[in-house]
This record gives sequence, C-alpha cells and structure tokens, in this order.
Amino acid sequence: MPKLILLRHGQSEWNLQNRFTGWWDVDVTDKGVEEARAAGRLMRDKGIDPDICFTSLQTRAIKTLHLALEEMDRLWLPEIKDWRLNERHYGGLTGLDKDEMRERHGEEQVHIWRRSFDTPPPELEAGSEYDLSADPRYADITVPTTESLKLTIERVLPYWNETIVPELKAGRIVLISAHGNSLRALVKHLSNIPDDEITSLEIPTGQPIVYELDDQLAEVERYYLKDR
Amino acid sequence: MPKLILLRHGQSEWNLQNRFTGWWDVDVTDKGVEEARAAGRLMRDKGIDPDICFTSLQTRAIKTLHLALEEMDRLWLPEIKDWRLNERHYGGLTGLDKDEMRERHGEEQVHIWRRSFDTPPPELEAGSEYDLSADPRYADITVPTTESLKLTIERVLPYWNETIVPELKAGRIVLISAHGNSLRALVKHLSNIPDDEITSLEIPTGQPIVYELDDQLAEVERYYLKDR
Repeated sequence: MPKLILLRHGQSEWNLQNRFTGWWDVDVTDKGVEEARAAGRLMRDKGIDPDICFTSLQTRAIKTLHLALEEMDRLWLPEIKDWRLNERHYGGLTGLDKDEMRERHGEEQVHIWRRSFDTPPPELEAGSEYDLSADPRYADITVPTTESLKLTIERVLPYWNETIVPELKAGRIVLISAHGNSLRALVKHLSNIPDDEITSLEIPTGQPIVYELDDQLAEVERYYLKDR
Repeated sequence: MPKLILLRHGQSEWNLQNRFTGWWDVDVTDKGVEEARAAGRLMRDKGIDPDICFTSLQTRAIKTLHLALEEMDRLWLPEIKDWRLNERHYGGLTGLDKDEMRERHGEEQVHIWRRSFDTPPPELEAGSEYDLSADPRYADITVPTTESLKLTIERVLPYWNETIVPELKAGRIVLISAHGNSLRALVKHLSNIPDDEITSLEIPTGQPIVYELDDQLAEVERYYLKDR
C-alpha cells in the first residue's frame, strides 16, 4: 500500500515574529530545530522508513528534513529539491509584520489575502529588498511576484504528478518536507477538500502527517503520526 | 574552465580514537563540525560557488557537506549520494584501535595494510559486529568484505566517469564531499600519481582542494583553497 509522509518545517524565525515569509529564506529557530528532531525521532520510533525524500529550495524545509533524517539514521536517503514545493509567494506582504498589516489594511483585508483561495496579495515590487529574482537558486525560472493558494496549487500539482506519483506507484515510501501552503495543495488534492475549506486547514509545524493510499493513490487514511 | 572541489569530511569520532573506520558509519566530532563549517566559510569567502554536489552514503561526509553548504547559503544545491564515494572498506581491521593493531600484528604489517596499493586487509567476518550487509542503505549492492586502495579506485573511477565527468563537461562546478581514500582515488587519476606514491599522499580533513581542469579534464592546477 503506497505511503506518503508530509512534514511541515519546524518553527521559523518569521513564524516567531509573526511576519509574512513566503519565498523569503528564513532559518528555523532553536524551537524549530527541536521540532524537526522530534519529528525524526517519532518517525523512527513508529517505524516510518522512507525510501526517498522531496523538499523545496528553502532552508527551513531542507534543514527540517536533514535534522529529521539524522535522528532516523537516514541521512543517506536520496533527496530531491524543487522550487515547486516552495511556500506560497506572499507578494507585497513579504516581510511585513502581521499585526502592522492589520492596523494598516484592516483585519478583514489581511484575512482575505491570507485565506482567500484565489485572490493573490499585491505584487512584490521589483527591486524590493525581498525581490529574489536575482537569487542563483532561481536562475532557471521566473520568480513569481505574488501567489494565491490557487496559483500555488497550479505549480505544486504538476510536480506531484510528474515526479512524486511515479515514486509512489513504484512502491516507494515518500517523505516530503515542505511548507504550509505547498502541503495544503497536496492535502487538498489527496483528500478532495473544497476550495473554501482548504484555506482554513491548519498544518502544524513538525508534525508528520501520514497518508495511506490505494493503488490509484486515492486516500485510504490520513492521520497525524503522533496519534498512532 | 571546469572546476572541481574535493572536501574530506571533518574529524570523525574514530579519527579521534585512532580506530580503523572504513564503511562503519561514525559521526563527526564537535571539532569535525567546526572543520566542516570553516570549509564552508572559506569557500564562501573565496567565491567558490558550486552548481552540484556529490557525496557518499556515510553520515560523516553527508553532514560535512550539509554544514559547509549551510555556511555558503547553498543548502538548496542538488546533492547526489552514492556508495561508490564511500571510504575504503578496511575489512577485518574495522573497529580496531590502531595502537592495539600495531602491538598485535607489528608496525610493519599494519603499515602494509594501511598503505599498500593492492594488498587488502583480512576480510571482515560475516556476522561481525561491523558487518553492514544487512544495512538498508546497501540493499541494492553486495557490501565488500575488504578493499585495497586499488579495489577502491576500481569502484570510484567508473562512477567518476559515468556521473561526475558529464557534469564537469557541461560546465558545472562540482563539489565532492567524501573520504580519505575515495578522494585519493580521484587525486591519483587527475594528477597521474604513481601507485607507490598515492598511498602516502595525505588528504587533510576539512580542507577544500581545488582542481582547475582543461576541457579534457586534465589537471591545469591543483591547490588548497586556504592558500589562495
């Protein structure tokens, strides 16, 4: 039975500061490091033994994966990184403190930008201090200027279908270390969650989510590993 | 001009204890962690900017790579792991303290086993506590029972030719994080070092070695990055 484990990165510096992060490459905090290690120990203790790992191009997801794998004595597993597993790009909200945003634009507007399925935030201005278009890790792509959850899904799912699905169909257990919204994209797809419900589905940091799938990769069961 | 950087892992627990390690998967020490980070900072400060990384299936080389890449802000680089970059397998010497070995077998015999080009140490006995034939990371291969440097070269070079050479020929800067003897294999090949000289060539831990190569991947220049 195909098995997939989703892991959201441990707490990041900007999670802690309550700032919109998106594609900005912040590190995990000491608490985030501990969350990642605890996730690894949980997987090891519960007998989760992946064959291959996928992650984004962002430090917080890559480090979470490495820290978890180290606890599992599985640093040697193959690991594939791709920008399509990156966090949603928060556009012009990147770097802003969420409380400040609420004061400036109103609670309601911020809530729409954060939680609307298809309304992207304002675009990030070119030349902004958070403009990543010259970052060498994105040399081969056009960095988005903003993304709704819908747009995020539209780049996550083709990658899922082209690259991850074949691994699951070949019988490999797959571990994905990624971000709140790139994982929402996968959960929406696998669990058939409607557009207006997925935006409020919270994916906790450092908690492995296990999908048991049938041969067509439809969900048989989804659970937090800590609950088993 | 093709460029290759070789990095031997930072000090391991058994380097420190003066024990034969080979394929046994020991971790780096605190000093080894610092050596790896320093190598990363040196590469960053000297403008070394790899496009792709290769390493072994052994924790000490993988962690050295990750620690160096983190200092370089390059954790996102593609990373390929393969057993053919593993350390030489020390057979029945694995786990033994080098001083004890000298007392038991004589300085000369130990020196032959360590430094002979083509005399492998005695085979590791099946079922020994250091037998890795059931380790899942080696599920697809037959784990050697012992290796001379010659046998090590005979598995490193085909991998070099098949997998790493095409990257260099495509113009990519390659970083390899590996082990004393898998790196000796590459240095012997690239610098045309005779059989009787290569065994005494020391490759220091945590010191990036840079090869500037011509289009045929022949050595133009080889140097320690710290000297530039």
